Amino acid sequence: MYQVRTDLALEAREKFEGSNVEVKGVKVSQDEVHGNMKVTKVMIETENGAKIMGKPRGNYITLEAPDMADNDENYHREISKEIAKLLRELMPIDKKELSVLVVGLGNREVTPDALGPRVVDNMMITRHIIRKFGKYAFGLSRNHQISSIVPGVMAQTGMETLEIIKGVLDETTPDYIIAIDALAARSTKRLSRTIQITDTGISPGSGVGNHRHALNKESMGVPVIAIGIPTVVDAVTIVSDTMSNLVHAMEESRKLEDLGKSISSLEEAEKNELIRELLSPNLNTMFVTPKDIDESVKRLSYTISEGINMAFFPA
Amino acid sequence: MYQVRTDLALEAREKFEGSNVEVKGVKVSQDEVHGNMKVTKVMIETENGAKIMGKPRGNYITLEAPDMADNDENYHREISKEIAKLLRELMPIDKKELSVLVVGLGNREVTPDALGPRVVDNMMITRHIIRKFGKYAFGLSRNHQISSIVPGVMAQTGMETLEIIKGVLDETTPDYIIAIDALAARSTKRLSRTIQITDTGISPGSGVGNHRHALNKESMGVPVIAIGIPTVVDAVTIVSDTMSNLVHAMEESRKLEDLGKSISSLEEAEKNELIRELLSPNLNTMFVTPKDIDESVKRLSYTISEGINMAFFPA
Amino acid sequence: MYQVRTDLALEAREKFEGSNVEVKGVKVSQDEVHGNMKVTKVMIETENGAKIMGKPRGNYITLEAPDMADNDENYHREISKEIAKLLRELMPIDKKELSVLVVGLGNREVTPDALGPRVVDNMMITRHIIRKFGKYAFGLSRNHQISSIVPGVMAQTGMETLEIIKGVLDETTPDYIIAIDALAARSTKRLSRTIQITDTGISPGSGVGNHRHALNKESMGVPVIAIGIPTVVDAVTIVSDTMSNLVHAMEESRKLEDLGKSISSLEEAEKNELIRELLSPNLNTMFVTPKDIDESVKRLSYTISEGINMAFFPA
Amino acid sequence: MYQVRTDLALEAREKFEGSNVEVKGVKVSQDEVHGNMKVTKVMIETENGAKIMGKPRGNYITLEAPDMADNDENYHREISKEIAKLLRELMPIDKKELSVLVVGLGNREVTPDALGPRVVDNMMITRHIIRKFGKYAFGLSRNHQISSIVPGVMAQTGMETLEIIKGVLDETTPDYIIAIDALAARSTKRLSRTIQITDTGISPGSGVGNHRHALNKESMGVPVIAIGIPTVVDAVTIVSDTMSNLVHAMEESRKLEDLGKSISSLEEAEKNELIRELLSPNLNTMFVTPKDIDESVKRLSYTISEGINMAFFPA
Repeated sequence: MYQVRTDLALEAREKFEGSNVEVKGVKVSQDEVHGNMKVTKVMIETENGAKIMGKPRGNYITLEAPDMADNDENYHREISKEIAKLLRELMPIDKKELSVLVVGLGNREVTPDALGPRVVDNMMITRHIIRKFGKYAFGLSRNHQISSIVPGVMAQTGMETLEIIKGVLDETTPDYIIAIDALAARSTKRLSRTIQITDTGISPGSGVGNHRHALNKESMGVPVIAIGIPTVVDAVTIVSDTMSNLVHAMEESRKLEDLGKSISSLEEAEKNELIRELLSPNLNTMFVTPKDIDESVKRLSYTISEGINMAFFPA
Repeated sequence: MYQVRTDLALEAREKFEGSNVEVKGVKVSQDEVHGNMKVTKVMIETENGAKIMGKPRGNYITLEAPDMADNDENYHREISKEIAKLLRELMPIDKKELSVLVVGLGNREVTPDALGPRVVDNMMITRHIIRKFGKYAFGLSRNHQISSIVPGVMAQTGMETLEIIKGVLDETTPDYIIAIDALAARSTKRLSRTIQITDTGISPGSGVGNHRHALNKESMGVPVIAIGIPTVVDAVTIVSDTMSNLVHAMEESRKLEDLGKSISSLEEAEKNELIRELLSPNLNTMFVTPKDIDESVKRLSYTISEGINMAFFPA
Repeated sequence: MYQVRTDLALEAREKFEGSNVEVKGVKVSQDEVHGNMKVTKVMIETENGAKIMGKPRGNYITLEAPDMADNDENYHREISKEIAKLLRELMPIDKKELSVLVVGLGNREVTPDALGPRVVDNMMITRHIIRKFGKYAFGLSRNHQISSIVPGVMAQTGMETLEIIKGVLDETTPDYIIAIDALAARSTKRLSRTIQITDTGISPGSGVGNHRHALNKESMGVPVIAIGIPTVVDAVTIVSDTMSNLVHAMEESRKLEDLGKSISSLEEAEKNELIRELLSPNLNTMFVTPKDIDESVKRLSYTISEGINMAFFPA
Repeated sequence: MYQVRTDLALEAREKFEGSNVEVKGVKVSQDEVHGNMKVTKVMIETENGAKIMGKPRGNYITLEAPDMADNDENYHREISKEIAKLLRELMPIDKKELSVLVVGLGNREVTPDALGPRVVDNMMITRHIIRKFGKYAFGLSRNHQISSIVPGVMAQTGMETLEIIKGVLDETTPDYIIAIDALAARSTKRLSRTIQITDTGISPGSGVGNHRHALNKESMGVPVIAIGIPTVVDAVTIVSDTMSNLVHAMEESRKLEDLGKSISSLEEAEKNELIRELLSPNLNTMFVTPKDIDESVKRLSYTISEGINMAFFPA
């Protein structure tokens, strides 16, 4: 009813009345269940599909795991393995030696936005060692050169994040970028329970901090794989969603029969305006996040970094 | 309309239709304007007043400054001086040498809850030096012994915060406790713009993490001065507030005349139930906070620590 | 030749000319090799042995692993398992449900001293959950109650670390304390490569920050298991050791025959005085540590926390 | 006697027997005393002077203050003012609007190496605001565009620090770089008590982490002002210095007359070799630092950031 933001393709798809209905230009794979995880692929295949979904063309893989917020180490190892498997499908890791720049997006000082920087903290960094000691430094069959950067956010650097990454890129010319970012979901139920991996990079307006420019193959010249976990819901989203539910409930309620009728008589545009008027402008700069977000971010940043490490350096 | 939480006495008072109306047992001082700051005192004088306000008896001093969120150093020095002045009114700092335990409540790992720990990071700690080198260590006329503790939160320690403070207290027997905590406000407009200083300590259910037990003279045996700044709004509060506004708007709106009538016909209890049904149970564990909360907490923790330092050790 | 400090019983023992010679009251077990690790036990059995060794009576188990500084996850899992096994020998973990307070000693803000606080960051904390939800909260056969505290250092708190722990102890009455601390070794070769586990607690003067009081069964009333890893060498130790070597080399050197003779003619006391004069008094407050200590502390704190977690909650 | 490292031009100059003797191509200004500070300028004017000093041609300004390690806020404000004054002499801050990139060199995770990153944490960053809102955003007469970057160290990024800075530079084209770095001194007495400001940038081999490449006008294309504070002494330096003193003492000592004679008969090269043999190879990767380095770095990083802020934005 009201324009709300979600960085998850899965949620964008859900807007269209259940996953059975077909949206032209968008394919959704059957869910595959791996142990306690559910893997869904959303493929946006046409420009039309991209327009409807509000997301660029490409593949969006979602890994849902209800217990992901728990601190069970064995379970997280399974998730890491699944991430590694998916990355190996998206990049020719087994076929040649790659140089990969891992970018930890977001603000380390704001807990739900610290996911990217904290993933990078636990990465196995090899580029400098292989360049110094050569291929035999690690005794591996494929010596992938992993480098990383935590570019910070504009309030800290005075620079667009993408200016910084672009600069680093020109000097180090990797084959791939893997960008990690904390995402905004539409529903609080998804927070810390979903991992999205895409080959479309990061779009403007996504992430906790709302990047202004795209980080993708077009802007960077090399393919950009993005890995994200929703850690916040926009405050505007949560409020306007609940209000939509209220209006909907009034329309449905028998007890509120008359009420329902009068609301039904409102134009969609009038309803939207009503809600917009009630939303404090302050809310635009606010987000909603769980009180235990510190534990989730600590746990999940480790799960992702292990997944990437496993993808390039299987034990 | 719906039971919402605020840790600010000023906001609790505002519920009663403007500050002119008298609430029995509660006195509100005329606002005093000091430069760019407004200082208001709410005195809850009777048990009845305490019941109505939902806050214990005592004095609540609120320092409001619209530009507090900005990074103007001179302005923050003025705020620190005002804090120092207020503390000197609440404690006999000029009359005798005091031993004071400063407690930094909250979770250092969650940005809006890190205020207390970060204030303690910048405290001038003197207890160990005066005990070792004696009164002449600092060459001051009054040698106040300042000690501090950051007790952490239950998820980190497995212990009630108050168990830890109580234990430390028994060993070190201070004359006063100063407890610093991040607060929950009702309105996003107050976030990072208001400082509350009270002589009532910390109540159960206040703070970002919702303490279960009171930290006050009764539980601790020594007076507890609490200093707090609102950094979050409960997610439930923000949503139910906006919904109340929606219902109110419907009642008022001419365009929605019929709607208004049908809503007016609902019992208060029915309205509440309607809203309660729509609130996701998830929301109870969520908070709303600004995206630049890292900057505010960094800035304001320094402003408070300087205020306390000035109170005990004027330059 | 000169009084130097080591927190490692193994190094204290080595002063006595090789491990074959017997020191009265001190037994050294045969080294056991477990995979890539060497486990040695030093038992100080009498007061005389304690005096000679400069360490209290009790058992000192040393786990040496040359590759411990490397970042091989499987190898570290083996070390964690060995730590778990040793802890299960020192405490009746299999026999009854225990309440254990894990204490992270040291200064989180000084990298080589942050080991203790960082171990606690990764502990599985259960006390508050079991006390709230009862024995069946985790579905385990033995529900050990783990709590933890990071007391900070005196410059931060104004209190003796032991005052704080004692206070917490009185409130929570655990059956055991496990204290984690960064240690000072005599030799740089041991840094980040040795783990010492003892049932004697922490002695005055040990650790990076030189605790003034003992943390042991006598002072605390409950047994104290200490786990430590050397991360620094005292600056005085490293300088005086090298100078001793210089003097020794001169005595031995054929090229320096005359020199040797004149040095040999000096009394031991004169040699010591010579060295003492040359040592800058500044050195007393300085330590020596490797440039990559951040990586070791990150890696090893995780290895220890996993070891403790495994001891109490086997997968 | 033995080749030891110092990043301070003042110490390099001191090797030449007191500051009165002239070294060709090197000028030393009379010390100026400003309150409690001493300011000395060393000008290396010729290539010959550069060779003798082991430092590139340029100006090295040293600000010595014995009480700099103390936590007196007023005193630190004086130091910040002096830094601001010196920066205004080195850059045309009053003459035109500048774009300046502040680079925080070093490793945030190793306390004595965290100076650079922590200075950047407190910088007033304006580039993005002026570019978005124009000259009148701050209402200042000169709107300097300040941006900043913390490039991290090679073990974290897999890239040369200078690769990263070069990349960022190409995108943002500042007029000046200000690089902040923790330095290595020769003497423990200088640690946390000296600030060096130079217009020569950062040389290979300087800093705690020993940069491999120069960060200067030649490599970057824009002038590089470097601000550094010594926070460590190389372990090799401290040991070999003390040994030199020992040998020197033996030569001088009447009690050790014969000894002195035999040492005097050794060639300089033989003495050096003797010392080199005794130095453990481990020492090359180790540094010496004070136990309270956390307090100094916190305090001094703030003093420097305030100095830079004052230089560009006088209150």
